[in-house]
Amino acid sequence: MEQIDVQKKMAGKKAVDYIKDGMTIGLGSGSTVYWMMKRLGELVKEGLDIKGIPSSLRTEGWAKQFGVPLTDFSNTQQLDLAIDGADEVDPQFNLIKGGGGSLVREKIVNTASKKLIIIIDESKLVDQLGAFSLPVEVVQFGYEATALQISKLGCEPVLRMNGKEPFVSNNGNFILDCPFRVINHPEQLNDDIKSVVGVVETGLFLGMTDLVIVGKDACVEVLENS
Amino acid sequence: MEQIDVQKKMAGKKAVDYIKDGMTIGLGSGSTVYWMMKRLGELVKEGLDIKGIPSSLRTEGWAKQFGVPLTDFSNTQQLDLAIDGADEVDPQFNLIKGGGGSLVREKIVNTASKKLIIIIDESKLVDQLGAFSLPVEVVQFGYEATALQISKLGCEPVLRMNGKEPFVSNNGNFILDCPFRVINHPEQLNDDIKSVVGVVETGLFLGMTDLVIVGKDACVEVLENS
Repeated sequence: MEQIDVQKKMAGKKAVDYIKDGMTIGLGSGSTVYWMMKRLGELVKEGLDIKGIPSSLRTEGWAKQFGVPLTDFSNTQQLDLAIDGADEVDPQFNLIKGGGGSLVREKIVNTASKKLIIIIDESKLVDQLGAFSLPVEVVQFGYEATALQISKLGCEPVLRMNGKEPFVSNNGNFILDCPFRVINHPEQLNDDIKSVVGVVETGLFLGMTDLVIVGKDACVEVLENS
Repeated sequence: MEQIDVQKKMAGKKAVDYIKDGMTIGLGSGSTVYWMMKRLGELVKEGLDIKGIPSSLRTEGWAKQFGVPLTDFSNTQQLDLAIDGADEVDPQFNLIKGGGGSLVREKIVNTASKKLIIIIDESKLVDQLGAFSLPVEVVQFGYEATALQISKLGCEPVLRMNGKEPFVSNNGNFILDCPFRVINHPEQLNDDIKSVVGVVETGLFLGMTDLVIVGKDACVEVLENS
């Protein structure tokens, strides 16, 4: 197992310590969440009574594989805890997410949750957001016009591909990867992009993270929002 | 033909006077636009050289029926003129749109256009927006949580139905009809709703209309934005 995978596994397994009996859990997406789901499945088999709402079809598949019971927003509109990965985490716990293409569902789940724990390997910690191209989910229709509007905010958006075809999100939309390089004012940028007609959601997750669990080679570091 | 249909026909036919040779036209949606499309087809047959981008699958069907040539946003990201209907028009030319369920595509098309002409019958003129429930397009996933967030802005959103199933937009999303009754600050409300995670777009079309053509029983009234 490569070093980065060891770190992801450490972080993922640690996160389930925060899950208590009776909770409804937002289940994030991505390779670090995989390890959380695997461990959660073991605890459910041992009697832990929880329900989860998955933020991607892939996570839904893991839930079925590992025996994690699911519910949905028709039953509850407020979750107790969400656990999710991230592509970048800055010192203020602001995030860039969406490398896996599930940013809209993740943002809906995380926003509906009372608490959010982010689980990452060390490489995701950054001093400033923006080196990772910001994913922005947009309506397919007229995405060229939407990209033109976003470009006026200071980047050249790139349509995410899946082989020779555009990548399509679980919501049927396209993703524009926006290489801003350095994001000095994340709140302002998020507002500016979201207000562009045709934009569904941005990959900036601001002010919603309570705890960051950083997987290291032989331990985890737990960072609390001050 | 009922009185309201006479007015729609008057307004729709008048709008084509503003279409010039060589233009790329945003083709709106709805029953008043139908008459515009019919007249436009006649002029194309007589030699008018234009191309249109339709804002709904229904309008695309009319374009094919009446022989109006089409293009799309892969060829051009700026249109010369858009012509569209509306559900409410206030004295500042702010609009509520989306009764037909095509508000996202309409807003993308109208935003990409240098000019926007709105064609309506008299019943659509209002002193203040809001008696018509504001349509808001939302991602299907977690729409219950999205509706809960919107309700905090002062209304009880209603999921639009199509028989026994939820209505699904041309973009694969749901529509929440939001009965605000009186909208005192349309700009603020638009920003507040658009910033809700899960919201794709609102039916408030603000500050983008140049001309309103009002169909009457035997004439049209042309209102210019002052």
